[in-house]
Amino acid sequence: MGLPKAFQRYRPALDASLKAAFEGRNLFLYDMQRYHMGWIDEKGDPIEGQGKGLRPLMCLMACEAVGGDWQKALPAAAALELVHNFSLIHDDIQDGDTERRHRPTVWHLWGMAQGINAGDSMRGLGTLALLKGSTEHHPRKIFAALEALESASLEMIEGQYLDISYEHQTSITTDEYLDMVSKKTGALMECSFHLGALLGTDNPDTVESLRLCGRELGLVFQIRDDTLGVWGMEESIGKPVASDIRRKKMCLPVVYALQTASGADRQYLHRLYEDCGPTQDGEVDEVLAILDRLGAMAHCQSLAQEHCQGALAALDGVELAPCMRTNILQLATFFAEREH
Amino acid sequence: MGLPKAFQRYRPALDASLKAAFEGRNLFLYDMQRYHMGWIDEKGDPIEGQGKGLRPLMCLMACEAVGGDWQKALPAAAALELVHNFSLIHDDIQDGDTERRHRPTVWHLWGMAQGINAGDSMRGLGTLALLKGSTEHHPRKIFAALEALESASLEMIEGQYLDISYEHQTSITTDEYLDMVSKKTGALMECSFHLGALLGTDNPDTVESLRLCGRELGLVFQIRDDTLGVWGMEESIGKPVASDIRRKKMCLPVVYALQTASGADRQYLHRLYEDCGPTQDGEVDEVLAILDRLGAMAHCQSLAQEHCQGALAALDGVELAPCMRTNILQLATFFAEREH
Repeated sequence: MGLPKAFQRYRPALDASLKAAFEGRNLFLYDMQRYHMGWIDEKGDPIEGQGKGLRPLMCLMACEAVGGDWQKALPAAAALELVHNFSLIHDDIQDGDTERRHRPTVWHLWGMAQGINAGDSMRGLGTLALLKGSTEHHPRKIFAALEALESASLEMIEGQYLDISYEHQTSITTDEYLDMVSKKTGALMECSFHLGALLGTDNPDTVESLRLCGRELGLVFQIRDDTLGVWGMEESIGKPVASDIRRKKMCLPVVYALQTASGADRQYLHRLYEDCGPTQDGEVDEVLAILDRLGAMAHCQSLAQEHCQGALAALDGVELAPCMRTNILQLATFFAEREH
Repeated sequence: MGLPKAFQRYRPALDASLKAAFEGRNLFLYDMQRYHMGWIDEKGDPIEGQGKGLRPLMCLMACEAVGGDWQKALPAAAALELVHNFSLIHDDIQDGDTERRHRPTVWHLWGMAQGINAGDSMRGLGTLALLKGSTEHHPRKIFAALEALESASLEMIEGQYLDISYEHQTSITTDEYLDMVSKKTGALMECSFHLGALLGTDNPDTVESLRLCGRELGLVFQIRDDTLGVWGMEESIGKPVASDIRRKKMCLPVVYALQTASGADRQYLHRLYEDCGPTQDGEVDEVLAILDRLGAMAHCQSLAQEHCQGALAALDGVELAPCMRTNILQLATFFAEREH
């Protein structure tokens, strides 16, 4: 099952809004960002290719779902995508990742110092997109939208802080891990549904329901991401098989295993993950075997399903535009079952 | 001549506003920021010591100068200081500086990745401080304030980008250099006077005059900073004598010399600054001798004076609260003549 068809309908307008945020920005500083967005290559020539744009498309869908005019949420949608990509640019520096979507990362091409600047300025473009583009709404509404966006950004950064501080911390519980994830990934997805609903309706209960739904969807998305990082197919996810095990990245299957394994498996896992050195091939296979014995994949999938149901339950009794409940169901299912 | 006395009057309320921005923020992520602000040591124990707070104090002074209630500008003032300090935290990473104000820098203590997070989240606290704390103002006003703050932040980052891209670029002209400086340092000082005036009066001409005055003051401040980086006394500025020459940092005296030197001096300077290796003691002395022959110090001082006069000229015909013209004159003089 793919993404809701509605997403295709929003795409051209979203792309135009995103590009408009860079209009008149001629410094090479902004070309680094256009490169990151997948609009130009490193020499500045136009190319095809871009991110999925999940957050902004979710924002537009939430706006339409609550009966609003989705076009009026375009500035907020653009802001969300820019804030998300600011975090990716910094994330690549923090993780030392040299590739993203099969291309060299910004910092890898232009150095860490300018990579930090590229991320910092993209975040500014995001806030300005929301501020400048939302003149059709009542000021109090844009206020609430801005506060939601800034609070979500801050929560996302808190999640990023926790994620880094959890490296090689084998005593992390799944609850702590899920709390981190709900900040790092959930906060901005929550904010996407929140902003869309806020700009689409004056009913605060509806806004709150969509917000909660968005947070649950964020968890589903990240839990599936963690699953794919261990068991995803190289050709679909663009990363080597078991790449997160290879890198000893803390991810839900491993956190679950560290917490639930016993005996020799437990000893093996804890010793391996406390060690900061690189993994050997045999170790990767052994970890995969332990995860298998513990049913880690099934555990993750059932947790994803649980939050999928939580997302839909959040919308119980909420009046939505025609087809929109189906669209959100389709999105939730895609998040839980996607292969890439 | 020191800072205007009025600054002392604002200080306790400013400090309270700054600390309030961190209220309820319990993650260690925020302790790294409290450390950077000079409120706690690296173990978390309270200490005395903080930055000058020039930008927020300028904001409060501008508010009072145009007849406003400076207390209502406190959230904006706090936001300015937080945005400024976000830029310092990232700047230290970008420059690889291990010390600031005689203490280890945040990234040096807790690593580059968490240093980036500390800066990123401090910026978020800044925007939120302005957003949440300004409920007494008309929404349109806070809107204008936010747009000014975000635009200034973006310009500051552009300046930081240019500064880094100018390293070892010996063909930079003083005009290009001053344009960079007016972004990197001027934008936020301009914004300080701009926000203070905006929140203090409804007269757009007055706001515009104060904004222009602030930009000029920013240039004065940075030109003097560049002068001190070359000729400042170690005991006043807390950096070794001629530290900016030693690091081959592009600074106004050097840019001026690269542009105006001729013959052997020109050859020497250009060859030295194109080379990315470290300087020797003899080279530092030779550069100082060339700067001396070219009258670089006098040139910088006269440029600072020029912008000082520009700052005061911007206020011609503007009605200001009693004593406030004198206070601004005192601030401008301090910026132009300070020894630290």
